[in-house]
Amino acid sequence: MAHSSKIFCCFSFLFSTLSIIPLSHQLEQHPLDSLTPIEFIRVQAIVNQSHPTTTNDITFQYIGLNEPDKQALISWLQNHRTTPITAPPPRQAFVIARINHQTHELVVDLLYDNIVSDHIHHGFGYPLLTFEEQNGASQLVFNHAPFLAALNKRGLKVEEVICETFAIGWFGETKQNGRVVKVMCYYLDGTVNLYMRPIEAITVTVDLEAMKITHFRDRLVVPVPKAAGTDYRESEQKEPFGPELKGITVVQPDGPSFIIDGSRVRWANWDFHLSFDARVGPVVSLASIYDTEKQEFRRVMYRGFVSELFVPYMDLTEEWYYRTFFDAGEYGYGLCAVPLEPLRDCPANAVYMGAYVAAQNGMPIEMPNVFCIFERNAGDVMWRHTETMIPPDLITEVRPDMSLVVRMVSTVGNYDYINDWEFKQIGSIKVTVGLTGLLEVRGSKYTHKDQIDEEVYGTLLAENTLGAYHDHFITYHLDLDVDGCE
Amino acid sequence: MAHSSKIFCCFSFLFSTLSIIPLSHQLEQHPLDSLTPIEFIRVQAIVNQSHPTTTNDITFQYIGLNEPDKQALISWLQNHRTTPITAPPPRQAFVIARINHQTHELVVDLLYDNIVSDHIHHGFGYPLLTFEEQNGASQLVFNHAPFLAALNKRGLKVEEVICETFAIGWFGETKQNGRVVKVMCYYLDGTVNLYMRPIEAITVTVDLEAMKITHFRDRLVVPVPKAAGTDYRESEQKEPFGPELKGITVVQPDGPSFIIDGSRVRWANWDFHLSFDARVGPVVSLASIYDTEKQEFRRVMYRGFVSELFVPYMDLTEEWYYRTFFDAGEYGYGLCAVPLEPLRDCPANAVYMGAYVAAQNGMPIEMPNVFCIFERNAGDVMWRHTETMIPPDLITEVRPDMSLVVRMVSTVGNYDYINDWEFKQIGSIKVTVGLTGLLEVRGSKYTHKDQIDEEVYGTLLAENTLGAYHDHFITYHLDLDVDGCE
Repeated sequence: MAHSSKIFCCFSFLFSTLSIIPLSHQLEQHPLDSLTPIEFIRVQAIVNQSHPTTTNDITFQYIGLNEPDKQALISWLQNHRTTPITAPPPRQAFVIARINHQTHELVVDLLYDNIVSDHIHHGFGYPLLTFEEQNGASQLVFNHAPFLAALNKRGLKVEEVICETFAIGWFGETKQNGRVVKVMCYYLDGTVNLYMRPIEAITVTVDLEAMKITHFRDRLVVPVPKAAGTDYRESEQKEPFGPELKGITVVQPDGPSFIIDGSRVRWANWDFHLSFDARVGPVVSLASIYDTEKQEFRRVMYRGFVSELFVPYMDLTEEWYYRTFFDAGEYGYGLCAVPLEPLRDCPANAVYMGAYVAAQNGMPIEMPNVFCIFERNAGDVMWRHTETMIPPDLITEVRPDMSLVVRMVSTVGNYDYINDWEFKQIGSIKVTVGLTGLLEVRGSKYTHKDQIDEEVYGTLLAENTLGAYHDHFITYHLDLDVDGCE
Repeated sequence: MAHSSKIFCCFSFLFSTLSIIPLSHQLEQHPLDSLTPIEFIRVQAIVNQSHPTTTNDITFQYIGLNEPDKQALISWLQNHRTTPITAPPPRQAFVIARINHQTHELVVDLLYDNIVSDHIHHGFGYPLLTFEEQNGASQLVFNHAPFLAALNKRGLKVEEVICETFAIGWFGETKQNGRVVKVMCYYLDGTVNLYMRPIEAITVTVDLEAMKITHFRDRLVVPVPKAAGTDYRESEQKEPFGPELKGITVVQPDGPSFIIDGSRVRWANWDFHLSFDARVGPVVSLASIYDTEKQEFRRVMYRGFVSELFVPYMDLTEEWYYRTFFDAGEYGYGLCAVPLEPLRDCPANAVYMGAYVAAQNGMPIEMPNVFCIFERNAGDVMWRHTETMIPPDLITEVRPDMSLVVRMVSTVGNYDYINDWEFKQIGSIKVTVGLTGLLEVRGSKYTHKDQIDEEVYGTLLAENTLGAYHDHFITYHLDLDVDGCE
C-alpha cells in the first residue's frame, strides 16, 4: 500500500531543525548538491515576499533543486578543472506551492534572489501531500459525529483509533476532483500493528482545500481482525524463541576505503555525486569509473533515481477501488525516508548522512541518518579460475567481490522500501529495492476459506484478515552516459 | 565450454590418498553419507574379485552411494529416534565400470560384501570420462606424426602445446559411436591462459577403448591469438593498478553458529545433511526447519542437487559443431571440484570440508577443501518497519538478514562454476551458480570487425579471437517435501 502521514515523525524532527551548515561552505557547493537549509529559508522568503497579501495561506508542497541544464553542467565541469573561475550553471530551486487555492510551479534563482518563472498548473494531478495537511485531514473524523457513531456501533474506543489519508487515484473523470483524499482508520487496542486491524466499510472523503469532510458513508459492519499475535516488537515476543545466533560483524581496522567529500563519493574505481530529493529520495549523478589503462575516468551514468512507485490494488469494492497510489508523486519517496538504525539497517562499517526537506511552511527539516554508505563484503567471488592443466603447479587465482552500497529506507505507511544503489568493481551499478514492512490487509467477515464463495480480492491469511491483491511497480529514471554516449 | 582433464590435479591428490577415517566412525554413519575411503576400497575389491580374469582391465568410471529407497529411509529415520536398534536401509554403492569393453552398472552391497545386481548397458550414452583416460587420449597426439607436422607447419613449439579431450555429443546417429572423444590443443608460449590461444582447424578423433587416434585432419591454418595481455595471475600484472581497498573482514568472536556433526549441519532453525558425489557435486538432503510454535521440525526438501550442466555451442564448423557438453554426466561436476582458497573463495569465518572420489582403478582420492560453509552477513535486512503513526515514540524494528552458505567450486576446463546452497532464516533455500573463469574462444583470421562478412558464430573480442556463442543450462533435481507433501 502506499499512503502515509509521518506526521509525528515530522514534528519531532522540526525541533532539531536549525543546526544550520555555515554559509561559507557554499563556496564549495556542487551544482547538483541538494538545497541547503539556508537555501530553503531563502526560497521561502522569496516566495512569501512575492505574494505579501496571502503569505499566511501559502503552503509549500515541494521544494527541491531545479536541475541545471545537462550540457551546461557538463561543459562547466570540464572547463572548471582548468579554469576554476568559470561561473557554474544558475543555482535554482523548483517549488510547488499552493497560493490562493492554486498550484504554482515556481523557479527561484538563488544567486539573484528572484522568481524566474511562475506557472499555474490547471491540468490533472495535484502536488505532493504535505504531512501537515495529511495530519489535518485524518484528525477531522474525531470531530465528526457520524464517524463517532460508527465507532460506537462497532463497540470501538475512539482513543485506540488511528487514521490515515489516502490519495484517490484517477478513473477517467473529465473534470478535476480537486485536492481530495479519503480517510481510513485502524484500531490499536492491544497492538502497535495498526495495519492488521482496519476498520472496514467506512468511507470518509475530505476536501483538503477546505479541510472539511465532504462525504461520509458507513456501509456495513465488518469485524476488526483480532490484535493477538500481531505485535512485531522484539520486546513483546514470548517464548518459545528460535535458536539465537552468535555475534557476527564486519571489521575494517584501517577504516573504510571510500571518501565522502561533501556530496561526492569516491570508492575503488568509482566517483559519483549523491543528493537527496523529497519526491524521489536518493539521486546518483555523474557516476564515472576510472579506467586504469586509459588513466582517465569514463562516464557511466549522468543521473539516476527512482522516478515513481505505483502501487495499485485489485479490489473493486467501494472502500478499496481508488487505492492506486503513487508513492513518490503523492507521498514523497524521500519525504517518507526514515532514520536508519545503526547495526541493524546497515552493518557496523556503515557511515551515515542526513538530508533536509521543506515543511509545509517552507522551513527546512533535518532528516538524520537518511543514507548509509558501506562496503559490502558478502563472501562472494568477483572472478576466479583454477588451472589444472599446467603441471607441476595448480594455479588458483581468486578475486573476492567487494562493492559499495548507498542505502535509504522509505516507509510509506505500512510498507518499507529498502533502496540500494550498489557500485561494483567490475563496472556495473546494481539497483535493488527490498520490499518489507507490514502487509496491507482488508477486514473480512470470513474466518475460514471454506466460507468464501465470492471474489474477495485477496487471500484469507487469518481470521477476518484478507491479504489484498496488489502490485508494486518501481520505475527508475536512468540517464546513462556510457563513455559519453547518451 | 565444458571439457576438462584435471589430470595433474588428480595425480597430485593421489599421493595424499590414504589418510583414511577410522572404521569405528561407521557405526554413526548416516544412510545418506557419501562412501567412505574404506567403502571405496571394498567396492573395488568386490568388483575386481567378481571378474578375476579381467581385473587388470577393469576401469571404474563412477563409484557413488546407491541412494536408499526414500520411503524406507524416512520410516527408518522416524523409527530410529524411538528404536535405535532398527536396521538402516541397505548400504549400497552404485558402480559404473568398464569390464571386457562393456559398460556395467553394478549395485554392490556393503553389509554383505556382494554384488546385488550387474546390468550391461547397451543403449546410447557412455559413462563419465575418467581423468586417466582423458589424460591418455590427450597425450596421444604427441606421438602422432601428422599432428607434429601440423604444429611444424604453424611454427609452434611442441613443448608449449597443451591438449584436452572433448565429448562429441549426439547428432541423431542410429548406431552408437562407441566411446569416442576429440582432442583439441592450445598454445601456452608466454601465458598460462591456454584457453585464449586455441590451435584451430585440426581435428583429432580418439577411440578411448583402443586408446588410438582413429581420424586426423588438418583443415587450414588459422592464426593463434597472441599471448600478450592474457595472463590473469596477480603476480604477472603490471602498473597502472586500480585503487587498492583497505582490509575488510568478517569476525565471529564466539565462533560460528552452525554445528557440523559428520554430514549433518545445523544452523539457526535449519537441519540438513550434506554429501558429495563425483557426478553431481554437493547433495543436500533431509533439509528441515524448526517451527518454534509447533516445536517440531518441518520437512522442506528431501534431496536436492545439480542434475546436469548442459553447455551447447552454436558454431557449425567442422571443429566446433560437436561441442554440446554434459558437464555433470560426461566430466563430473563433483569430480571437477577444486580446492577452495581460504579467505578468497570463502570469507574468513568459513569452515572447510573434504570429500573422496574414486580413481579409475577404484581407489579413493581425497579432495581437500571441496566445500566451505559460512554464515553470510551481507548487510541486508530480513524484515523491518518504522512506525510513525503512534506518538510519542517512533517504533523502529529491524531484523538483520543472516544466512548459511554451502559452497563448492567446480572448474570444468576453462569455466568455474560457483555452486551455492543458501539457507535463509525466513525458511527459503536459495540456489545460485556463479559463472566465472575464462571465456571459450575460437581462433580466427580476423583482426577487425570490418573484415567480417560471414557468420562467424561469435563476437570478435580481440585480434584473431572470437568469443563463441554458447549457453549454460543448469538443471536441478529438487525433491521438495514441504511438510511431507511430495
